[in-house]
Amino acid sequence: MKAYCEMSKEELAVLEKELKAQYEEAKAKGLKLDMSRGKPAAEQLDMTMPMMDIFNRNCDMRDEKGVDVRNYGNLEGIWGARRLLGEMLGVDPEHVIVFGTASLNVMYDTVSRSVTHGVMGSTPWYKLDKVKFLCPAPGYDRHFAITEHFGIEMITIPMNEDGPDMDMVEKLVSEDPAVKGIWCVPMYTNPLGITYSEEVCRRMADLNPAAEDFRIYWDNAYCVHHLYEDKQDTLPELLSMCRANGKEDMVLEFASTSKISFAGAGISCIAASLGNLEWVKKSMTIQIISHDKINQLRHVLYFKDLNGIKEHMKKHAAIMRPKFEMVLEIMERELGGLGIATWTKPLGGYFISFNSMDGCAKEIVQRCKDAGVTLTGAGATYPYKKDPHDSNIRIAPSYPTMEELRASGELFVLCVKLVSVERLLEK
Amino acid sequence: MKAYCEMSKEELAVLEKELKAQYEEAKAKGLKLDMSRGKPAAEQLDMTMPMMDIFNRNCDMRDEKGVDVRNYGNLEGIWGARRLLGEMLGVDPEHVIVFGTASLNVMYDTVSRSVTHGVMGSTPWYKLDKVKFLCPAPGYDRHFAITEHFGIEMITIPMNEDGPDMDMVEKLVSEDPAVKGIWCVPMYTNPLGITYSEEVCRRMADLNPAAEDFRIYWDNAYCVHHLYEDKQDTLPELLSMCRANGKEDMVLEFASTSKISFAGAGISCIAASLGNLEWVKKSMTIQIISHDKINQLRHVLYFKDLNGIKEHMKKHAAIMRPKFEMVLEIMERELGGLGIATWTKPLGGYFISFNSMDGCAKEIVQRCKDAGVTLTGAGATYPYKKDPHDSNIRIAPSYPTMEELRASGELFVLCVKLVSVERLLEK
Repeated sequence: MKAYCEMSKEELAVLEKELKAQYEEAKAKGLKLDMSRGKPAAEQLDMTMPMMDIFNRNCDMRDEKGVDVRNYGNLEGIWGARRLLGEMLGVDPEHVIVFGTASLNVMYDTVSRSVTHGVMGSTPWYKLDKVKFLCPAPGYDRHFAITEHFGIEMITIPMNEDGPDMDMVEKLVSEDPAVKGIWCVPMYTNPLGITYSEEVCRRMADLNPAAEDFRIYWDNAYCVHHLYEDKQDTLPELLSMCRANGKEDMVLEFASTSKISFAGAGISCIAASLGNLEWVKKSMTIQIISHDKINQLRHVLYFKDLNGIKEHMKKHAAIMRPKFEMVLEIMERELGGLGIATWTKPLGGYFISFNSMDGCAKEIVQRCKDAGVTLTGAGATYPYKKDPHDSNIRIAPSYPTMEELRASGELFVLCVKLVSVERLLEK
Repeated sequence: MKAYCEMSKEELAVLEKELKAQYEEAKAKGLKLDMSRGKPAAEQLDMTMPMMDIFNRNCDMRDEKGVDVRNYGNLEGIWGARRLLGEMLGVDPEHVIVFGTASLNVMYDTVSRSVTHGVMGSTPWYKLDKVKFLCPAPGYDRHFAITEHFGIEMITIPMNEDGPDMDMVEKLVSEDPAVKGIWCVPMYTNPLGITYSEEVCRRMADLNPAAEDFRIYWDNAYCVHHLYEDKQDTLPELLSMCRANGKEDMVLEFASTSKISFAGAGISCIAASLGNLEWVKKSMTIQIISHDKINQLRHVLYFKDLNGIKEHMKKHAAIMRPKFEMVLEIMERELGGLGIATWTKPLGGYFISFNSMDGCAKEIVQRCKDAGVTLTGAGATYPYKKDPHDSNIRIAPSYPTMEELRASGELFVLCVKLVSVERLLEK
């Protein structure tokens, strides 16, 4: 393949004509496909259906500690669920509180509580002139939406191949007391699919914040979401690393089974120091009597332990892997060597991160949409939805069927080529 | 029986000696009983166990609208759940959002959102010097805990037999723009067990608040919790009454199935004007992708409609009624005519409200505790836990077995008599 930048205007003009014709043809197919969100496919949800047989009307509904899970009580969640999710994160059950379906809700509540009540006795954020969060980007749009919702200033931190730019993070965290947090998806990160290196984690655990109420929001959403059995990223456990540095209050870890059991009906957790958990519980005990312990016990009895989760995740991988590989194959085949795009090749998680030429992402997403394929909005992976290069597009291959994915993928690369040629012709 | 106030000091002294001996005897039994919270008994939870058979591994997990309840989506809850809880409240499904297990959580979030973001575009409460809530008391301690947690000043409103003192409510709401809300449990109210009269509801729906962001927090927790089939309170539907007055934004209704299906694993809702729901969703869409729709569908398929709920509640009544009657029988037998206490005789709900002579409640609760019976803390039913008369005690007869309840009840009346005699002797 000849790189587009080496083509003459004439060659590009011929190519544009061809691509336009192909695009009109594709448009005429009337596709209606969605690659916008990291939603599990129906067949992934089917895998967990045996969980529906866990209980029947004659079951003893007490957990291993004798707690009747049907009644009020056990604010922190049942012991088995704390153990199960703790095991998944590599944290002792004493350091885990189990909540309802969504870790996003737990993160939102944590920020909200910091705004109204401060963090472990510090000044409530609403009383401060300025509160800032560091936002490694491209990152998770829903994280950024939370901080934006609370009027927290977001500072974009560039992402390297081994995690956020730690020079910049260290400088900002240690110098600016208004910096109260950093959003991290440390493993198979959304959307890059990379995993923070040991070195990055070591530097995270050794931050010296100017603010006593600075917290690392460690959203370990994809900690068991490997695509391959033989090629897997590994992530050090941050809470223990922070503890070893005498900084155990500095990190709040979050996780859920949304992409393990059911996206709409899993269980979620926070893992943190006992000091942080006491702080969480001070509001939590006002907020709720207890979360759904029946669903917690359902998960405990179904998965049993980390090994159960790992076995289950192999089945997810068997469904996800071919989807990732198909998209990557289409990109490689159609865009390889053209010099108009780069993309990540993750070993896990839910996303492929795609970078077009500068100033093309919005237009590519629009062209896809016009031809019936919905992608995550361009810019969504950046704070305030502003991608400074208008280049990053998050690809979510999980939800469509293989057939739909092929059609979406082919359309996507076509749009990438067309928009790139148009841009080059404008120059 | 001779009223205690008619007894001579000598008679009282003799009585005190007798009662003390009886108390020591009771204490020696080493009871360990709990009448402190409105927790359903195990046999009530057993009733709903067939709900555990609703799903199995081969079920189609789509709802009536074709929504796969296992996946993300449907922020407002599935249609069937909105319809079911709407029917229970007498409100159209469009006006209902269904949440997770706890209506308490929904109320907390509503107050929290008002603090951080204001109400439907009004000034966020954190920016105001003073925010006040009206608190009809005796009332629900967890309501008061929410407002206290957010530093909201609580104004105690006396409760009459037909609801809060509406003269006082009208005056405060119409004159003071700092008054932003009123906590109401309008039916079989916690702890009195009374139901607001039509007249009180009419006046509620016709309030003229000085504050545009004033809301009636209408916690209809016991709307289907009748004890008798032939004697039932009725409550007008407030949202439609407010709408008829052109004030549909003034009320937020809350409910859950915590005391219908499972206390720890029900579904909850808010019912309100579309304007209020839009306001709720503005934060909710940042907070969570969707609540547990599997549990929502489980409830829909189990109860089907309001009639299903009503039939189910008859079974609850069959368990609750004898408990209420036993406690009331013991009180009547042992305290009737003594002139030292009054109590309510509710037709529904979870509580009996007991009033001792002034200045006795704390001591009675303490004596019960010393002899092994835990009651709700005296004062808990008032803002800041301060009962101005130290007289109100909330009796929660649901959780203990009949046998335990008899023992608790007998001990309770003994403590009431003993403490009353002691007080009279001090005079």
